Amino acid sequence: MAAFNPIISLTTDFGLSDGYVGTLEGVILSICPSAKITHLSHLIPPQDIYAAAFVLYQSYRFYPSYAVHCVVVDPGVGSERRAVAIRTKLGSFVGPDNGIFSLVLAQAEVQQAVSLTNPIYQLKSISSTFHGRDIFSPAAAHLAAGAPLEVLGDPVTDLTRFDFRTGLEAGQSRVIHIDHFGNLVLDVTDQDIPEPAKLTVSIAGRTIRSLSKTFADVAEGEPLIYVGSTHGHLEIAVRNGNAAQTLGLRRGDVVQIDIS
Amino acid sequence: MAAFNPIISLTTDFGLSDGYVGTLEGVILSICPSAKITHLSHLIPPQDIYAAAFVLYQSYRFYPSYAVHCVVVDPGVGSERRAVAIRTKLGSFVGPDNGIFSLVLAQAEVQQAVSLTNPIYQLKSISSTFHGRDIFSPAAAHLAAGAPLEVLGDPVTDLTRFDFRTGLEAGQSRVIHIDHFGNLVLDVTDQDIPEPAKLTVSIAGRTIRSLSKTFADVAEGEPLIYVGSTHGHLEIAVRNGNAAQTLGLRRGDVVQIDIS
Amino acid sequence: MAAFNPIISLTTDFGLSDGYVGTLEGVILSICPSAKITHLSHLIPPQDIYAAAFVLYQSYRFYPSYAVHCVVVDPGVGSERRAVAIRTKLGSFVGPDNGIFSLVLAQAEVQQAVSLTNPIYQLKSISSTFHGRDIFSPAAAHLAAGAPLEVLGDPVTDLTRFDFRTGLEAGQSRVIHIDHFGNLVLDVTDQDIPEPAKLTVSIAGRTIRSLSKTFADVAEGEPLIYVGSTHGHLEIAVRNGNAAQTLGLRRGDVVQIDIS
Repeated sequence: MAAFNPIISLTTDFGLSDGYVGTLEGVILSICPSAKITHLSHLIPPQDIYAAAFVLYQSYRFYPSYAVHCVVVDPGVGSERRAVAIRTKLGSFVGPDNGIFSLVLAQAEVQQAVSLTNPIYQLKSISSTFHGRDIFSPAAAHLAAGAPLEVLGDPVTDLTRFDFRTGLEAGQSRVIHIDHFGNLVLDVTDQDIPEPAKLTVSIAGRTIRSLSKTFADVAEGEPLIYVGSTHGHLEIAVRNGNAAQTLGLRRGDVVQIDIS
Repeated sequence: MAAFNPIISLTTDFGLSDGYVGTLEGVILSICPSAKITHLSHLIPPQDIYAAAFVLYQSYRFYPSYAVHCVVVDPGVGSERRAVAIRTKLGSFVGPDNGIFSLVLAQAEVQQAVSLTNPIYQLKSISSTFHGRDIFSPAAAHLAAGAPLEVLGDPVTDLTRFDFRTGLEAGQSRVIHIDHFGNLVLDVTDQDIPEPAKLTVSIAGRTIRSLSKTFADVAEGEPLIYVGSTHGHLEIAVRNGNAAQTLGLRRGDVVQIDIS
Repeated sequence: MAAFNPIISLTTDFGLSDGYVGTLEGVILSICPSAKITHLSHLIPPQDIYAAAFVLYQSYRFYPSYAVHCVVVDPGVGSERRAVAIRTKLGSFVGPDNGIFSLVLAQAEVQQAVSLTNPIYQLKSISSTFHGRDIFSPAAAHLAAGAPLEVLGDPVTDLTRFDFRTGLEAGQSRVIHIDHFGNLVLDVTDQDIPEPAKLTVSIAGRTIRSLSKTFADVAEGEPLIYVGSTHGHLEIAVRNGNAAQTLGLRRGDVVQIDIS
């Protein structure tokens, strides 16, 4: 019989210098010695819930549904914000209840959710500033080791979610993420566009016409729009260049999408 | 029966670009195929023994005591400095004998220590500059795989330790670490302060009064002092800011602590 | 019976911010749940095939020969370049057929190579820009899990290799890599030099005489040349300094080696 290999993915804004991530690994392996620990990102910009939500969103679907995704970007640590664990058919999630799971929960229906109030599944001494170590990673490890979700705490039905479309007018789309290569991810998927073939995007005084299939569709240094392979959203890149720099755009900026 | 999962944590100044860490992983898995390898930090500033000692110190207690912690920050590589392995009740440690285990050994009594002189537990060809690969990671892997400490080499009783209080006067404390968020860690714990409630810290021309429990105790941009959750030491932060930048302080700088 | 622990090493230019590496980990563990995943580097400069080839080259020999090395630096993604898997006695390799395995294949004779054309061993939906996730990591995971190489696709005999000596005259050597410490790696090993004792290197208007054994052979701030411990190539460093900065050299620059 093959040994079962539970999986816990970690996403944080802890950086890679200080040993905080390695501390979570120690906590997890103390509770669930057979866990496979993977790392989505520890370079989430400090306290940037939005960025963490996106990184999780584009990765979690490529994990087995028994994986537990522990996300710790937690500007409200020490305040009254809740700590939660959530089970869906597409995976389980542990982290602060600050909207960080909004994108995931738009795809993955909540089966069960609890507030992490049971001290038996936390470290003995709870600090005021490092709940990643004291509350979130222990909960993730216990889930991965087979603990039923309901033992971790009290049922929750009103999970915090934020709305990515606030303030947008018809035809407008928002840059919700900028990746390592400077590619710009918009908040719409190709499913949202009635006639992608007739698409026109106006952005920073430039116009990009029609969806491309590959980078090779345009000349070097030219912008293109395509369906992002990591998430299905529309994405703007510059061939062999950096779209965010070339177009002078930031996350949150708005572009106009027309069908003409 | 569950498979046993030995743990080896790695802490180095190798950086993450060059493949050196991945090379250690190959060496370790060649010797101990079932090892769980975790990473405290590979971004220790080059040759900064002090920083490595601190990162190890604040993480190792969250590991099971059967974990082997391999630390390679080794400015003396190629000289006569010894390579050592140390067993304590709180974990085992492998690395250069340059004081890097000083903070840990102030908490964890040495049960047994050896100099890594037995070539059987080293790679066949020993380079002059990469003992992390040739000597330290093989020793850690053999320990994790079950080799008794004493077979690795000759007994050692005079381990190198450095004193973090050198040059300080009464009431003075030193900044011994600055973390990713710019928080300043002092060399004293709350156990060292007789009446924390009456604490006053004078630093960079400013005065911080009394211990805080959470960041929410002060306004945004204001400094606070609290018991650091990762280590129990006093720590100075600026709410939603960077204390090192705001206060203009570096590691090694001295602050005055008064009880008034 | 101990559980078998397949190994997959990853080398990419994905960076560590965006969750792309964690996505590969999810794909791999979905296919081969017992895999040990290690990381050579994810900070390969974007699309720098040459740098990836070197990082792989200096690490892979320290892995068991059953390891699968998956390398994804792929400027040709979306074009007609082939995706390949290669078996040698020293390890198996998966990645784009763009020369990235050139240095390895100079040491490790090809036993069998295939083009990754069998869709059964790919994700169901193949994107145009993220073959690391859709094609390369699934192939590596299937190999690690025990799939025979030949099932992955069609036999290949004309693997792409590039020649690192192009354009060099006799006595000239090229800087093929600059590591984290600023050390310069040349394209020759000590085996290529008839009388290393009489070696003289002319570089950036300076002359370095004879091979050193350790950094301690020269004064602080002085350059030295030695046999690099990570690869056996000649390497130029500055003691406790950064050779690339001190000497003003870049990868690709040419130095003169004389025996006098």
